[in-house]
Amino acid sequence: MSATRPSSLSGTSAGSAAPRPGRLMAGEMAEQPAVLRRILDEGAAGIRETAARIAARNPRFVLLTARGTSDNAALYAKYLIEITLGKPVGLTSMSTTTAYGAKPDLTDCLVITVSQSGGSPDLVASTRAAREAGAITLAVTNNPGSPLAEVSEFHIDVLAGPEKALPATKTYTAELLALYLFVEGLRGSDGAAAEPLPELAGEVLARGVEVRHLAERYRFAQRLVITSRGYGYPTAREAALKLMETTYIPATPFSGADLLHGPLAMVDNVSPVIAVVPAGRGGAALQPVLDRLRGRGADLVVVGQQEQVDAASAGFALPTGVAEEVAPILEILPLQLLAYEVTIARGQDPDSPRALAKVTETH
Amino acid sequence: MSATRPSSLSGTSAGSAAPRPGRLMAGEMAEQPAVLRRILDEGAAGIRETAARIAARNPRFVLLTARGTSDNAALYAKYLIEITLGKPVGLTSMSTTTAYGAKPDLTDCLVITVSQSGGSPDLVASTRAAREAGAITLAVTNNPGSPLAEVSEFHIDVLAGPEKALPATKTYTAELLALYLFVEGLRGSDGAAAEPLPELAGEVLARGVEVRHLAERYRFAQRLVITSRGYGYPTAREAALKLMETTYIPATPFSGADLLHGPLAMVDNVSPVIAVVPAGRGGAALQPVLDRLRGRGADLVVVGQQEQVDAASAGFALPTGVAEEVAPILEILPLQLLAYEVTIARGQDPDSPRALAKVTETH
Repeated sequence: MSATRPSSLSGTSAGSAAPRPGRLMAGEMAEQPAVLRRILDEGAAGIRETAARIAARNPRFVLLTARGTSDNAALYAKYLIEITLGKPVGLTSMSTTTAYGAKPDLTDCLVITVSQSGGSPDLVASTRAAREAGAITLAVTNNPGSPLAEVSEFHIDVLAGPEKALPATKTYTAELLALYLFVEGLRGSDGAAAEPLPELAGEVLARGVEVRHLAERYRFAQRLVITSRGYGYPTAREAALKLMETTYIPATPFSGADLLHGPLAMVDNVSPVIAVVPAGRGGAALQPVLDRLRGRGADLVVVGQQEQVDAASAGFALPTGVAEEVAPILEILPLQLLAYEVTIARGQDPDSPRALAKVTETH
Repeated sequence: MSATRPSSLSGTSAGSAAPRPGRLMAGEMAEQPAVLRRILDEGAAGIRETAARIAARNPRFVLLTARGTSDNAALYAKYLIEITLGKPVGLTSMSTTTAYGAKPDLTDCLVITVSQSGGSPDLVASTRAAREAGAITLAVTNNPGSPLAEVSEFHIDVLAGPEKALPATKTYTAELLALYLFVEGLRGSDGAAAEPLPELAGEVLARGVEVRHLAERYRFAQRLVITSRGYGYPTAREAALKLMETTYIPATPFSGADLLHGPLAMVDNVSPVIAVVPAGRGGAALQPVLDRLRGRGADLVVVGQQEQVDAASAGFALPTGVAEEVAPILEILPLQLLAYEVTIARGQDPDSPRALAKVTETH
């Protein structure tokens, strides 16, 4: 079976009459190096300018609003803002505005709303309410003509091109990079650590065969636990979401510390664990959790540096020398591929998850 | 089997020589009406005084820090603060301080740390760092002599008495009530809506037989999805945590809106769903999600008002006439009982989750 698929993914059909399952998702995953390049070449200057205008307003604190995959991108931005910017930041509970009519005082507050489509009515309503409440509003979307972009004072276009697959992939990494450049811009930095990402992303995505091999162990998995800490935690959440919406395997993400506060009981020698181990302080903080998991005989697959993979049951080694704060843009790639490959191996179509629509209208 | 267990839970052994499985958890669940009464009678005045002193300092925004069960109590407080107080609020990502050494400017910020034991070193370290960064610090714990209480400027004792069971139950509802009274105190209210809770909690806990019946359907469940919106969402998260750490069933919590953004694909007619349906605006906002779940043939068990239970596959009807903002203190009770009963039905001991017992090494 594997001989009929190319080792690196592409969006073109393999020549048969019916479209290959997962064609859209594979094509959009493969676009990611080009999208990242486009953001750096064509988007970065505008993002820096937007950041400078917002920095001049000196926001005291930041709120992030998003849903689904974009919420995981927002969580990444939360880590950046807390660590590199030193500003207090929260993720909003949108229903407090849209269902309960909360009217917080948002003077001095920067509200960032992240959405691929920019079309979800609840995001538009909560952003409009935030602006009326005195917030500086910024929309980060893949559609500059969207209602969300219109109601926001500022807008950043993530330049990912139309996304047709239901599982979001290229817009996630595009949102991460745009948010990274924006937060760097707020503190007057040009975000040079991102420069190697397009090339490295291409190298990671070219290793689809390795991931296909890794996917075999989850062919009959009934559950998955995915854990990380620090900058890797948004990756764990996004990997879990991607696996759930394509493979339907219940994949539960935990920060390493929270895993030790109870849910470790779920893990035994037939419960697979995937750990995203950042090469830095997040990874160091995760070590005691990895030791406990190994002690329980867990099947532990690691996405991280080679030495971490070598100490696990299996894994995918990431490129060395990448700054920890931009590593999430690479870390998610093998896990997107994994969601794709496990779905194909189970005879399902990643492009047609049951029950999903591309623009979800939540109110 | 069920004939040998009392219909209402108590902490005493049924007379046999060996301790009954789950004796500690059952006993502590049964204490909850008395704990809630104690907080109202002996704790409320002090909580109001603490709130008045903090309100006089006029915090502009609030950060909440916690782990595990206490993190779900913190999430409840986040809804209260956004909706009833109109202040921006965030849940901190603790590793930003403890692993990455972030030094945010927390002037005008109220930092609330919630912890049963008050002893976790990372919570103590992050609270100390917050105080040094200019925050008003408040610890909410079950131990006034704890290191966390000591490093915080203010402290609220949740008065739950020693908690010995590994799955936290009485300290969760105690934290909810203490946080409710505190947030009410911040806006000069006495929180009278909480007055009926001890009696109603007793009535709910006396209906253990109903929950035992409900537990039968999960005897062989491989997964669970738990959903809610608004004030009910912390309940969904805490129920999932309780079920995972006792039964080991992967139980994934989703806000209703997030469920529609992807993970709905996991739900089919063999994937059970538990919905916590608040009697108010959160419940109204959840209706489209319930309709979609019914449309997909999901096995839908509802914890909510009788008419919501009647429209579902099965459920547990909550008392009527309770204010939506205090309802979470009752909603969690049947779900604590459910975690207990499913665990017993599976032949496991809720008092001895396996991660914390001696591990047999398999090779």
